[in-house]
Amino acid sequence: MKKLWGGRFTKTAEEWVDEFGASISFDQELVLEDLDGSLAHVAMLSQCGIISVDDATLITKGLHSLKEKAESNQLQYSVKLEDIHLNLESQLTEMIGPVGGKLHTGRSRNDQVATDMHLYLRKQTENIMALIEEMQGALLAQAKAHVETIMPGYTHMQRAQPISFAHHLMAYFWMLERDKERYQESLKRINLSPLGAGALAGTTFPIDRELTAELLGFNEIYENSLDAVSDRDFILEFLSASSILMMHLSRLGEEIILWSSQEFRFIELDDAFSTGSSIMPQKKNPDMAELIRGKTGRVYGNLMGLLTVLKGLPLAYNKDMQEDKEGMFDTVKTVTGSLKIFAGMIETMKVHRAQMESATKNDFSNATELADYLSGKGIPFRESHEIVGQLVLRCVTKQCYLADLTLSEFKEAHPLFEADIYEVLNPITAVKRRNSAGGTGFEQIRLALQKAEAKLKAR
Amino acid sequence: MKKLWGGRFTKTAEEWVDEFGASISFDQELVLEDLDGSLAHVAMLSQCGIISVDDATLITKGLHSLKEKAESNQLQYSVKLEDIHLNLESQLTEMIGPVGGKLHTGRSRNDQVATDMHLYLRKQTENIMALIEEMQGALLAQAKAHVETIMPGYTHMQRAQPISFAHHLMAYFWMLERDKERYQESLKRINLSPLGAGALAGTTFPIDRELTAELLGFNEIYENSLDAVSDRDFILEFLSASSILMMHLSRLGEEIILWSSQEFRFIELDDAFSTGSSIMPQKKNPDMAELIRGKTGRVYGNLMGLLTVLKGLPLAYNKDMQEDKEGMFDTVKTVTGSLKIFAGMIETMKVHRAQMESATKNDFSNATELADYLSGKGIPFRESHEIVGQLVLRCVTKQCYLADLTLSEFKEAHPLFEADIYEVLNPITAVKRRNSAGGTGFEQIRLALQKAEAKLKAR
Amino acid sequence: MKKLWGGRFTKTAEEWVDEFGASISFDQELVLEDLDGSLAHVAMLSQCGIISVDDATLITKGLHSLKEKAESNQLQYSVKLEDIHLNLESQLTEMIGPVGGKLHTGRSRNDQVATDMHLYLRKQTENIMALIEEMQGALLAQAKAHVETIMPGYTHMQRAQPISFAHHLMAYFWMLERDKERYQESLKRINLSPLGAGALAGTTFPIDRELTAELLGFNEIYENSLDAVSDRDFILEFLSASSILMMHLSRLGEEIILWSSQEFRFIELDDAFSTGSSIMPQKKNPDMAELIRGKTGRVYGNLMGLLTVLKGLPLAYNKDMQEDKEGMFDTVKTVTGSLKIFAGMIETMKVHRAQMESATKNDFSNATELADYLSGKGIPFRESHEIVGQLVLRCVTKQCYLADLTLSEFKEAHPLFEADIYEVLNPITAVKRRNSAGGTGFEQIRLALQKAEAKLKAR
Amino acid sequence: MKKLWGGRFTKTAEEWVDEFGASISFDQELVLEDLDGSLAHVAMLSQCGIISVDDATLITKGLHSLKEKAESNQLQYSVKLEDIHLNLESQLTEMIGPVGGKLHTGRSRNDQVATDMHLYLRKQTENIMALIEEMQGALLAQAKAHVETIMPGYTHMQRAQPISFAHHLMAYFWMLERDKERYQESLKRINLSPLGAGALAGTTFPIDRELTAELLGFNEIYENSLDAVSDRDFILEFLSASSILMMHLSRLGEEIILWSSQEFRFIELDDAFSTGSSIMPQKKNPDMAELIRGKTGRVYGNLMGLLTVLKGLPLAYNKDMQEDKEGMFDTVKTVTGSLKIFAGMIETMKVHRAQMESATKNDFSNATELADYLSGKGIPFRESHEIVGQLVLRCVTKQCYLADLTLSEFKEAHPLFEADIYEVLNPITAVKRRNSAGGTGFEQIRLALQKAEAKLKAR
Repeated sequence: MKKLWGGRFTKTAEEWVDEFGASISFDQELVLEDLDGSLAHVAMLSQCGIISVDDATLITKGLHSLKEKAESNQLQYSVKLEDIHLNLESQLTEMIGPVGGKLHTGRSRNDQVATDMHLYLRKQTENIMALIEEMQGALLAQAKAHVETIMPGYTHMQRAQPISFAHHLMAYFWMLERDKERYQESLKRINLSPLGAGALAGTTFPIDRELTAELLGFNEIYENSLDAVSDRDFILEFLSASSILMMHLSRLGEEIILWSSQEFRFIELDDAFSTGSSIMPQKKNPDMAELIRGKTGRVYGNLMGLLTVLKGLPLAYNKDMQEDKEGMFDTVKTVTGSLKIFAGMIETMKVHRAQMESATKNDFSNATELADYLSGKGIPFRESHEIVGQLVLRCVTKQCYLADLTLSEFKEAHPLFEADIYEVLNPITAVKRRNSAGGTGFEQIRLALQKAEAKLKAR
Repeated sequence: MKKLWGGRFTKTAEEWVDEFGASISFDQELVLEDLDGSLAHVAMLSQCGIISVDDATLITKGLHSLKEKAESNQLQYSVKLEDIHLNLESQLTEMIGPVGGKLHTGRSRNDQVATDMHLYLRKQTENIMALIEEMQGALLAQAKAHVETIMPGYTHMQRAQPISFAHHLMAYFWMLERDKERYQESLKRINLSPLGAGALAGTTFPIDRELTAELLGFNEIYENSLDAVSDRDFILEFLSASSILMMHLSRLGEEIILWSSQEFRFIELDDAFSTGSSIMPQKKNPDMAELIRGKTGRVYGNLMGLLTVLKGLPLAYNKDMQEDKEGMFDTVKTVTGSLKIFAGMIETMKVHRAQMESATKNDFSNATELADYLSGKGIPFRESHEIVGQLVLRCVTKQCYLADLTLSEFKEAHPLFEADIYEVLNPITAVKRRNSAGGTGFEQIRLALQKAEAKLKAR
Repeated sequence: MKKLWGGRFTKTAEEWVDEFGASISFDQELVLEDLDGSLAHVAMLSQCGIISVDDATLITKGLHSLKEKAESNQLQYSVKLEDIHLNLESQLTEMIGPVGGKLHTGRSRNDQVATDMHLYLRKQTENIMALIEEMQGALLAQAKAHVETIMPGYTHMQRAQPISFAHHLMAYFWMLERDKERYQESLKRINLSPLGAGALAGTTFPIDRELTAELLGFNEIYENSLDAVSDRDFILEFLSASSILMMHLSRLGEEIILWSSQEFRFIELDDAFSTGSSIMPQKKNPDMAELIRGKTGRVYGNLMGLLTVLKGLPLAYNKDMQEDKEGMFDTVKTVTGSLKIFAGMIETMKVHRAQMESATKNDFSNATELADYLSGKGIPFRESHEIVGQLVLRCVTKQCYLADLTLSEFKEAHPLFEADIYEVLNPITAVKRRNSAGGTGFEQIRLALQKAEAKLKAR
Repeated sequence: MKKLWGGRFTKTAEEWVDEFGASISFDQELVLEDLDGSLAHVAMLSQCGIISVDDATLITKGLHSLKEKAESNQLQYSVKLEDIHLNLESQLTEMIGPVGGKLHTGRSRNDQVATDMHLYLRKQTENIMALIEEMQGALLAQAKAHVETIMPGYTHMQRAQPISFAHHLMAYFWMLERDKERYQESLKRINLSPLGAGALAGTTFPIDRELTAELLGFNEIYENSLDAVSDRDFILEFLSASSILMMHLSRLGEEIILWSSQEFRFIELDDAFSTGSSIMPQKKNPDMAELIRGKTGRVYGNLMGLLTVLKGLPLAYNKDMQEDKEGMFDTVKTVTGSLKIFAGMIETMKVHRAQMESATKNDFSNATELADYLSGKGIPFRESHEIVGQLVLRCVTKQCYLADLTLSEFKEAHPLFEADIYEVLNPITAVKRRNSAGGTGFEQIRLALQKAEAKLKAR
């Protein structure tokens, strides 16, 4: 098969070079976007009098017919035709004759592919934002059910202070809220039309870029044609926002894995989100949480990959930039799937309330209460801290916990301790009393849940 | 020296473990932010009646005195005191006695350090945005001087179509504009107060987080205390925005290096931004452009580093997170310096206008003009493209350029060619006629320069 | 369809969760390795008396029949059966009945998949080493043809000193030699048998790991079963060696792109390795060099991805590790293709000898000769350097080159200059005289070519 | 101050540009290597008759005197003199007069700095190898003390099969063994002399590269001068080996953190390797394990950084390559410190043997034993697996463990179950019986410990 750009060439590339260079195996993902872009372009060409209305009608009809085929997966692609653009153009010309060749007037593959990618990423970003909200909804629902379920809060994986499970879950709600914000903000730079920038310098045809932008639902057009065809910032932003999102999921994944362990037993995942072992019949593995924690690596890699591709590239288009697509597609698939799984996993997980609560006793996570108690009575915090440290050490030696000490032992440590100290050491009290704004106190959590719910509904 | 948190410990860590774990060697960069945070905190403690006005006055005075010392670089730090927080607290207590210990009431190092970082990054981000504008100004000035300086536009490092040098430079203006937007947007998540989140769960003291936020100029407070102390998204965003910015600079750096080569000779850098060789006396190396192109790696590495740190970390604070600082400081330094250098380099570079222009002749970058010429007369673009390909091949064989062909040779290729073809082949004509929106046509460029200037002045 | 490990589960996972978790879409790449591993395993089970000879014969026959189907692409896989292991086992059991279930005795998917990966990577690494040698051969052939073709040597992209083109090409020969060494060394850790490590702890069956290792051609067995199933170092090493290799190719790619530009015109690529433009008929783009330069990003990303996956993973197997495969397969494909393309591209490229040579004149790359000349006469090098710097400056002002200065001008700069200075300034002389070991002097190059050829033949 | 290469320059760079471009703030780390390289170079210059014996003696004396100062930290460096090379040369010349300028004969900063880096990395790599062995020694010692300490072995963070704690620790011994191998192998490419390669092309002086190589203890010389000055593979290899090592430490770090948690309580770290909390007096945080887990990110980042720097760089030296140093120094410091800390941490940690052992009971990690039991009696493994799955489910429903089932319940599940089944379910039995090569059986472990010890002593 002869190549469309082959006019000046005397030799055909061997098949394996063609295959190595071709992008059709993956850029067919853009088929609908490419056809939509062409439909807008031909409408504009006709309206601006660059091609005749008759030619435009013919081309439009042909494009619609290709779109129907694409939607029902009936298009066949050829590696010889390199990419989605040439494949579609070739099929169009086959269908409607040489007039199909007029479609490419005032356009280059450089602005064409950029347009496709902008359209594609707009759609996907919006979809991801909706999926984030689904997962936020699942977190919110569990949190509402567990305001008064208390558990140890950890720092350094050591029990630190008792907290509400709702409070813990809601930390992820706010992370996701920031994720959503980042995707939202990136839309500003995604929803921008490069169409009409030509190969790099614009075109001599009297095209109307505002018109195609409007037809495609873009907010604005790129101000500079060189920038329009060589900008891949919007993909980097997508990969970066997705890396941060995946990092968040990897953190929650880690916790779900720990909580599902025999050591913690805080939760039990639904069977639908667990798997067994080929050799150990008793295993119920939190596979999905692990897999998604692992998939963080893939998304980081995609980000690093594209950053590397673009480093040091002179303007304008270079073939290196063909490498912008697979990492983007892979990231879309990964993020989309991960959010769906997490939403389902959180929604269906069983919470072992009693086990969580019992974990807040029989340890020293109420020690801060003691220090705060003393500081509340005027002892400089550092001094209180030191006194409580000594009490903890005494307990460790005696193999008991703080609530097991007698009042006289407390008083020995500091005369300001009174009998009300035992109430203070109760984990529930500890949680309740942490009622500063954004804290784990139940009152605060209920306020936070209201805010979160309002935020979620606002969209 | 005894450690502040050492109450329950029976053994002192060996010095080298201390050193390995200590952050004071780098987090002293945050000294002013830490003192500002403490000043706000103590004001609030007093206003909320948590500590007495007298105590607060004493502490405030002490902090101001430390701030003066810090500003004149007179503070000494000790590795034994681990970090900037404990170093300052120790010096405060030394100065004003045990009352200094009350400063830490209702606060933890976890929310304290987060506050410092938010304050630091807010200041630095604003500074970077101003430096971006300086560099945009330099680009704009050169562009204004070179609207009608024409040069080859490249794709695949092959001359593609002649363009205006101003148009080329302005592509970078718009990249920087997006960079600025990203930093601006990230401020929303930087300018947020974690103070009062405590170790992870809030505090039992009746603190007023809104008040400290207001005193520190933060827009809002974190809604969730666990999130407040474990969130490092804002640093990741900074590193990501900076990676993209450095990528842009690496691209311009690459071009400056090429343009400065003997092969291109498009520009000459000012001596202030070039260096010589220890062995080759004739060398004038575009060192700064190279170095900054190289420094892209460092910023990418910092991003990848922090993404790795945070991957899979359970809530809330873990010591791993101490690793968030050095990459951030290094990136601030790198980005700040790079922008300053580039602004100066662009401002002072000499443009070899004649050399650029001569490069647009004696090659085939006017071939698209021919194809457009035929398409403008109704030939489907693909057919025109094929015809011109044949003409190029003929020239290559004859060792001449398109303008050297006779009219009859043109007509032989296609009868629609007329004598006006020679004007069309003139590079200046080619540039002028690419007058579509955002294109390289002089008229378009002048419009774009106006827009850009307005944008720059708007801030 | 019921899952093989589903005994204790009461609910079936929804289809999309299955799909997300399944690896069959990509691990089918390991089909032959998996069957070979099973063949060795069953032979051992029988020889150790763990299963009967009859059962073993039946299973072996079944496996061979599956292998034939696999080799002719007739196997069908099901997502419901998750991965290649369960797919094959299920087909085996379908074919030979429940006795197929005995194949998994004393084995787990954990050691099975590790075995597959070791077998796969051994084969691919050996193939890559052969392809490296092909490319080295191509470099060597071009170098032999161009010992006396001189060109400017560059530092900082500035012409520094004239060199032989052969010398330049051979720099890449030695980079590739190191690449080969690294792959060779990694084989030590690839060619190691994890089979028999079980799920993580070994097995209670009296298996013979040495036997299966021998049957599969492994050099040794893993010493520790936990390590055997959780080690992915060998893949990281592969990705790291491949990243360095791709970095080398990206450097040569960059040079090929520059050399093919109108500014350099040092070489012309064969049409088979170039492509045209959809809009600019004259373009002949070094697409393959660009694409491979770009593909460096993908391989770096794969490395970073797996490093991230493994960070912080507790022993032994975790589902995250399923993410080890796609990046590896992708890297194999990328490296393999890139080496083939480069070998062909170098072999067929035309070298514009005259253009290269002419570039060594009319510039200052012979300035070092002057400095060396003076130093050779006893002037401290730093002083010579300074004197020559002044001469260059004089030329720049006069718009001439060093060879254009008169002898009296030279003598004015320093009395030790004599008439022989003009011969010294001749680029050919400069190249010839740089005859230190490993230098660009023709004599040295001929020696180096001999060594290289011997090295290549030695394998 | 005037620059040494400033002959042709008419303007001095502003101070901040100088600072940005200077490397002296970090490359002073190479001071001893630089002086050693110079000592070898001057010895060779004299022996080859390139400079006089008298001049050489003077220079040598000067260099020795600088070395003494360097060793006692008495050298002062100036940013104006850019780097360690020019700083030292300037001080030498100041000390011994213009003859100092002869030292640079036949040498360039390009081969000089490469030589320094090779010398530096050789020393550091050897040191790191010794530290790896220290940590291996600590693992071995703990393992020897805990052959019969049993604990749950995990996959997917779920208890899978009981194992010996020694076996678990020894998995890390073998990881470190591979780390050592990689560093060892990389020495082949580190211990190679670039000295004499000049700026890029060799030199016209009759130098003897073999001689300087021998004086500096290098095994071989680089075969190609362009390669010699532009090769940074050896640093990449170092960063890559270090990334894998840090990944290993991050895995062990994660486990130490988990084991130290209240949920696991498997070990207790020595106070020397733990820290407390500024707010929670009871906390004993495994800070060092966390910090090193975090530092993995930094080393990955350094690797990614240098890979990025080198991507697409044309030959030979470019200023970008100055960016090769800081990441290398930082990695040396990180790896060195991390190994030391881990060795101490493992050596001093207390193992809670009873707690570990008790964790192997009261769960289902003995389920595989049952399946193996049935398979040992001829039931196909898949069928056994299914049967045991049902038994586990029955236990879960009844809230008991497998050993709590009656023999008749076992027989109901399958008639082949006999009374010896209770012995089989005992965790100790399970560990003992996993006696396949490399398995956790005590006999196997003792063999493995012997091998490991021999390996460690062999060096």
